[in-house]
Amino acid sequence: MQNPSSVLRVGILGGGQLGRMLLQAAANYPVETRVMENDPECPAGHLCHHFVKGDIKNFDDVLQFGKGLDALTIEIENVNVEALEQLEKEGVKIFPKPSVLRIIRDKILQKQYYQQHQIPTASFVITQNSEDLKKQESFLPAVHKLATGGYDGRGVQIIRSKEEFEKGFDELSVLEKLIPVQKEIAVLVAINEKKETALYPPVEMHFDPVLNLLDYQLCPAGITTPTLYKVEAIALTVAKNFNSPGLFAVEMFVDKNGDVFVNETAPRVHNSGHHTIEAHYCSQFDMLWRILLGYPMGNTKQVLDSVMINLIGNNGYSGPAIYEGLDVVLKMENAFVHIYGKKETKPGRKMGHITIISREKQDLLHKANQVKHSIKIIS
Amino acid sequence: MQNPSSVLRVGILGGGQLGRMLLQAAANYPVETRVMENDPECPAGHLCHHFVKGDIKNFDDVLQFGKGLDALTIEIENVNVEALEQLEKEGVKIFPKPSVLRIIRDKILQKQYYQQHQIPTASFVITQNSEDLKKQESFLPAVHKLATGGYDGRGVQIIRSKEEFEKGFDELSVLEKLIPVQKEIAVLVAINEKKETALYPPVEMHFDPVLNLLDYQLCPAGITTPTLYKVEAIALTVAKNFNSPGLFAVEMFVDKNGDVFVNETAPRVHNSGHHTIEAHYCSQFDMLWRILLGYPMGNTKQVLDSVMINLIGNNGYSGPAIYEGLDVVLKMENAFVHIYGKKETKPGRKMGHITIISREKQDLLHKANQVKHSIKIIS
Repeated sequence: MQNPSSVLRVGILGGGQLGRMLLQAAANYPVETRVMENDPECPAGHLCHHFVKGDIKNFDDVLQFGKGLDALTIEIENVNVEALEQLEKEGVKIFPKPSVLRIIRDKILQKQYYQQHQIPTASFVITQNSEDLKKQESFLPAVHKLATGGYDGRGVQIIRSKEEFEKGFDELSVLEKLIPVQKEIAVLVAINEKKETALYPPVEMHFDPVLNLLDYQLCPAGITTPTLYKVEAIALTVAKNFNSPGLFAVEMFVDKNGDVFVNETAPRVHNSGHHTIEAHYCSQFDMLWRILLGYPMGNTKQVLDSVMINLIGNNGYSGPAIYEGLDVVLKMENAFVHIYGKKETKPGRKMGHITIISREKQDLLHKANQVKHSIKIIS
Repeated sequence: MQNPSSVLRVGILGGGQLGRMLLQAAANYPVETRVMENDPECPAGHLCHHFVKGDIKNFDDVLQFGKGLDALTIEIENVNVEALEQLEKEGVKIFPKPSVLRIIRDKILQKQYYQQHQIPTASFVITQNSEDLKKQESFLPAVHKLATGGYDGRGVQIIRSKEEFEKGFDELSVLEKLIPVQKEIAVLVAINEKKETALYPPVEMHFDPVLNLLDYQLCPAGITTPTLYKVEAIALTVAKNFNSPGLFAVEMFVDKNGDVFVNETAPRVHNSGHHTIEAHYCSQFDMLWRILLGYPMGNTKQVLDSVMINLIGNNGYSGPAIYEGLDVVLKMENAFVHIYGKKETKPGRKMGHITIISREKQDLLHKANQVKHSIKIIS
């Protein structure tokens, strides 16, 4: 990066909603944006300077895409890391570094990373196949996770007793002890090239037990001050040891004793940071641009408390999306709608989100419930 | 508009910074966006679903562009109104209505509109040419404005004495009595199809006396409550009598007696509303989408006080833009940078803006000055 004031060329691998929101924020800065994705009609496809149709998992496609860029980032971990390593050698800034992606994309390496850095995480065993899994009856209840390829609730199964072994995976996986979760917390950590760090306040996540998808999320999280300190220290330790600039969403469990366990980390803008667009001074998307472009860090403080609700394609509908009830939500004070522009809805597909901000925290859950009862995404 | 939940197709005539910011906001909604502009490298060109290269002043180009759209809006008044009238007949929603543009784009008709609706405005005479102008010595000091074609400080001259007649225009123009201005105020009024209205708090504008371009702007304006009520009532009267949905920026002068005079009105998103992106719950851009898409009105209240500073190309530099001092501004707490992505800077050209929000109003002017001394746009 020769000159921080000239227009830099930055690429994004993946063109989903995270790319879309990154590009909304990019238009505030002098930057030329490029997106690679197989589907030109993807959520981010029309919001960049140059769209490149290509396979983010293909070595040649990624290498070709990255040549001559100043910086490159991802909106999904499942990309060709070998090509990124080659581009890194050629001087392209890859944030997060490919070395981080190698760890993150493999749930076994990720667990070993936590162990190695003495980061508390649920104990685990590695299973090669179904046979292997069935030997672990004494380890139950546990969570079975595919080592690679899982995403957004796919590739994760809770196995409470031996009768449920059939839900497990017949592939290389990790079996983690089930933590008796009291709260699920996520902390976003930003790290720039100067190794300066900034933490967003922890959020409290509530999941849909059926879809295993984020249902709604409160900020700030309702945790005690000692837990807050613990959560922040752990998130910082997780992020800093990667030795990479970028944004890191560290998901943690808090149990009844206030003990904290890292669940997993996403080295990118993340669903748990969507509320930062309206509720915080510097959004997670703005922050990543600041890091990519070499600008100073932004202010992670919240302007107001917030709740964020994911909009998920309703069961029983597949096809061109229709959004029922948007009017009801848009009539609510300080509810912000984000529809991702996906052409087709599918049961459980993330189609958008809604953030509500308020000076009254009590207000938020009530309004979140209103939203959930008002909106239907059908076809 | 058959179905408020299906994806509507909306066009924008003009691809400048207003279009750019409109498109950043559009990506929150299920809408397919189209932009027409002659230059594909314009600020808004890469942020829409379909860019159409064309002349917004050309009948055929505008007609062709608008065919089959659900709604159409403008980011500059200087468009082909005849084509818009034809499209309106064909059922395309044009917000603001072409009838409004006919009035606004002609400064004489605009003055007559204010007269007709008993809206206070500086008294005026019409001048056909230089000869005509020179007969108006007794009317001085006054402001001479080209009837049509003026924009962003061009086509306006202050004439204080007969020695300055040569600065006037040798074309159809309007000569307005110079108001001894104490404050320049702007109020944004939103009106939807149901004729519901929403007012943004008045802003106080400070102009560069040389360039006649907005220098910085404070929100809320420092005016007394009686003046506030007057300003709001006048802005509402101006906007409502157009009988058109849309967003209306009503610029007013307040003199030492607290008397209010309408200067001019822009029937669109406007420079005086840029601060609403960060400082208000619903930005002017979000609001226009709500109106175009038939959604409920948003909340115009401010989250925090704000100051907005235009970033203008420095004198002596023409060519590919370089932004000096962005780092200094991005280090300031709660300063938000918007660079418009114009390839070339020119002296006086609007290249971007910066909004600062704060809980301390005293803080704002101090920070605005810091910004102005930190940033240089050169080539």
